Amino acid sequence: PEYISQPSAQASPAEPNRNLKYDPKKPHITDSPITRGNWYKHVNWLNVFFILGIPLMGLISTYWTPLRWQTAVWTVIYYFCTGLGITAGYHRLWAHKSYSAALPLRIFLAGVGGGAVEGSIRWWSRDHRAHHRYTDTAKDPYSVRKGLLYSHIGWMIMKQNPKRIGRTDISDLNEDPVVVWQHRHYLKVVLFMGLIFPTLVAGIGWGDWMGGYIYAGILRIFFVQQATFCVNSLAHWLGDQPFDDRNSPRDHVITAFVTLGEGYHNFHHEFPSDYRNAIEWHQYDPTKWSIWVWSKLGLATGLKQFRSNEIEKGRVQQLQKKLDQKRSKLDWGIPLDQLPVIEWEDYVEQAKNGRGLIAVAGVVHDVTDFINEHPGGKALIRSGVGKDATAMFNGGVYLHSNGAHNLLSTMRVGVIRGGCEVEIWKRTQRENKDGIYLKD
Amino acid sequence: PEYISQPSAQASPAEPNRNLKYDPKKPHITDSPITRGNWYKHVNWLNVFFILGIPLMGLISTYWTPLRWQTAVWTVIYYFCTGLGITAGYHRLWAHKSYSAALPLRIFLAGVGGGAVEGSIRWWSRDHRAHHRYTDTAKDPYSVRKGLLYSHIGWMIMKQNPKRIGRTDISDLNEDPVVVWQHRHYLKVVLFMGLIFPTLVAGIGWGDWMGGYIYAGILRIFFVQQATFCVNSLAHWLGDQPFDDRNSPRDHVITAFVTLGEGYHNFHHEFPSDYRNAIEWHQYDPTKWSIWVWSKLGLATGLKQFRSNEIEKGRVQQLQKKLDQKRSKLDWGIPLDQLPVIEWEDYVEQAKNGRGLIAVAGVVHDVTDFINEHPGGKALIRSGVGKDATAMFNGGVYLHSNGAHNLLSTMRVGVIRGGCEVEIWKRTQRENKDGIYLKD
Ligand code: HEM
Ligand code: HEM
Ligand SMILES: [Fe+2]
Ligand SMILES: [Fe+2]
Ligand SMILES: [Fe+2]
Ligand SMILES: [Fe+2]
Repeated sequence: PEYISQPSAQASPAEPNRNLKYDPKKPHITDSPITRGNWYKHVNWLNVFFILGIPLMGLISTYWTPLRWQTAVWTVIYYFCTGLGITAGYHRLWAHKSYSAALPLRIFLAGVGGGAVEGSIRWWSRDHRAHHRYTDTAKDPYSVRKGLLYSHIGWMIMKQNPKRIGRTDISDLNEDPVVVWQHRHYLKVVLFMGLIFPTLVAGIGWGDWMGGYIYAGILRIFFVQQATFCVNSLAHWLGDQPFDDRNSPRDHVITAFVTLGEGYHNFHHEFPSDYRNAIEWHQYDPTKWSIWVWSKLGLATGLKQFRSNEIEKGRVQQLQKKLDQKRSKLDWGIPLDQLPVIEWEDYVEQAKNGRGLIAVAGVVHDVTDFINEHPGGKALIRSGVGKDATAMFNGGVYLHSNGAHNLLSTMRVGVIRGGCEVEIWKRTQRENKDGIYLKD
Repeated sequence: PEYISQPSAQASPAEPNRNLKYDPKKPHITDSPITRGNWYKHVNWLNVFFILGIPLMGLISTYWTPLRWQTAVWTVIYYFCTGLGITAGYHRLWAHKSYSAALPLRIFLAGVGGGAVEGSIRWWSRDHRAHHRYTDTAKDPYSVRKGLLYSHIGWMIMKQNPKRIGRTDISDLNEDPVVVWQHRHYLKVVLFMGLIFPTLVAGIGWGDWMGGYIYAGILRIFFVQQATFCVNSLAHWLGDQPFDDRNSPRDHVITAFVTLGEGYHNFHHEFPSDYRNAIEWHQYDPTKWSIWVWSKLGLATGLKQFRSNEIEKGRVQQLQKKLDQKRSKLDWGIPLDQLPVIEWEDYVEQAKNGRGLIAVAGVVHDVTDFINEHPGGKALIRSGVGKDATAMFNGGVYLHSNGAHNLLSTMRVGVIRGGCEVEIWKRTQRENKDGIYLKD
């Protein structure tokens, strides 16, 4: 497809495979809005043909091509190999440098990754780094804010203004000979690893040339593409956000199953240099398992892992955020500093005159309507009216539950001056004879 | 069983059915420790016979008694009826007054509740109120702190000192004629509703007298007893504590299935006057459903429900508690007030001399070991060394994730006097020429 060979505007002119037809000075088609008259100019027809046209033709051909079980098994195996090329190779090794790979492993990953037909390592990683650096912004090449379908394939099917995509540093990739070689010979790699090799295996292996071509070649490419595209769409749309909810990435086991373990995407955007996407042992991440096996074989080294202390901190902060949102929606009673200050005598007086007032811990509560509902009976709660019921309420008679304390705080009506019966204020009041609610 | 007619020491002498043999002045067997010589005196043999002996005999009799399907169905139906007698009647209506019931419903519940053979309403509710009021303490009649088996049946099988059980107010029960009548005629109620009635139904209904007696009578009693005993054992042992974890009650769906919905026991102990035990629609609480149906039929009124605001407050507080525990176990970096204060000049000087120091938001961080690991590349992070990198770090170059901020805080080594480069302090320093680390 065209996206294979189209470098972004940021590519230096010295780069290999620079698209010679592209002139950053001429106005780009994406500068004019889509209309009835020009919509077809906005569509990248070459990509439409590669991503949807060829698979459709493959699908039609299955009508004449019986599926043999050997070919079915081989298709599934090669599906996993080429998928791993993208997830363990393109993504975790080259785009994120989350581990280092020995030359044979790099060659293998560059080969099977090419067989997934999703562009060269260099092109893919540049876009992917921009996606991480500018997630959800206009500079994000596959921003989900433009719609789920856009983030899935729209960004390839519609022409893009190369200037729009955020700038990223890929100097390290230009130093890796495997990456440079794959980029330079990309079309040959795609043809061989995408179609010829799977056909050869089925043909030489059990004589099923046509089946190898249609199933392990064309249709397998379609499934690998759609599956890995889900990392850009589904993983930014479906699931939880245990680490940060300010951006779109989400964790979901379904996405993980579809994408060889790339579905724990909220974690991944928060800790992109971690070679794992799933950190729990019971989560599905075959890409992580493969890297781990390679490390045991000496093929992969320097597997990076974020300290679990940092990971847990992120989780705790996100939980705290959700909890604070929940808390702010609840009624916690009038804050103490907004309550009127009441003299002890006034409290006692009003309680005598029939208001069901109870003082607990220096705060006056109006329990008039609650007396009949009191689970401990009318008699007990009445025994606290007009008194300092702090001790009774807190275990002297009954150690009330946390729920009872919460309920009590919603019944606040005032604060007692001094917090309890204070002799010296009684005297002052007797001398001054001033009003009832003495605001401080 | 004996527990049917044994009132606690707190029962007033004027109470109906006071146990005349009990003399609070004589020393009780539980005052002497269990030894090899006296253990059999500690066992309540009558209860052992009723709770374990009779069911065992029933079990043996099944050998000669074929189970007919009509009897099986009837046993299950009557199991649910007698179970509801305990959960909706004894527990939620009488012990907790969580709703009011019309006379016919009260008679029904007193009858089928009696058929579960777990003591009279009066005896059961008194103990149950003590269980709520003194949960997990020595005054709790079936405290799980004494062991799971003890809370399940040990408290009935071993003799209890009636003085030990906490005092509770049951004056309201003494005013309910149905309760008083059931207590007075308890043995007759048990015999009729526990054995005679289920036998009659199977006998008259489809001629299976023996099956009705063994299955719908004896064995059904055993299962209802064991199931409802689980509220005291399993519900204080298995599951989560979403509302309060200071006491033993727990929520678990398994306990709920066994106990007709009484398994959300952490909620229940926190909000005992709520007619529901399960508050979520998808949780299993057939007792709640029954009460709701009765209310629609006009048989139950005044269904009490705690305000959801209070329930959510409890949940939020418990979550907060767990979160705080988690947070306290993590490394959040040296607190700002424990860091040395550094002059701007010293910071710049030290960075020039090769230490990888970066100032962000007035705090100096030592990133020397992190430069090579920086996911954004060595060059970018180096560009901040010895400078005020606040803007770069916070979006000027790249808006770092929350995880990056957390990681940064673990690298703190000092605070800059004034938070940034301040001209007036430079001058003072030039004039004074005093030391490097100027502690405030
Ligand atoms: C001041 C004197 C009070 C006394 C002596 C008292 C006593 C009691 C007792 C003995 C119980 C246990 C009932 C049982 O489980 O059988 C109880 C339960 C309860 N009381 Fe009070 N009470 C008092 C005031 C209040 C007030 C002012 C409130 C208002 C919120 C309140 C709310 C509750 C609640 C919600 C329960 C249910 C169990 C729990 O959540 O702990 N009580 N009370
Ligand atoms: C002060 C100058 C710094 C600049 C200009 C800078 C720049 C960047 C850039 C551009 C990225 C994005 C890499 C990508 O996704 O392709 C990045 C990522 C990252 N940087 Fe820095 N960085 C600086 C300092 C630091 C420091 C002091 C830390 C120490 C904690 C740090 C920690 C990280 C981490 C953890 C990431 C991974 C992505 C993330 O968590 O946001 N950076 N940095
Ligand atoms: Fe993403
Ligand atoms: Fe990524
Ligand atoms: Fe309980
Ligand atoms: Fe209860």
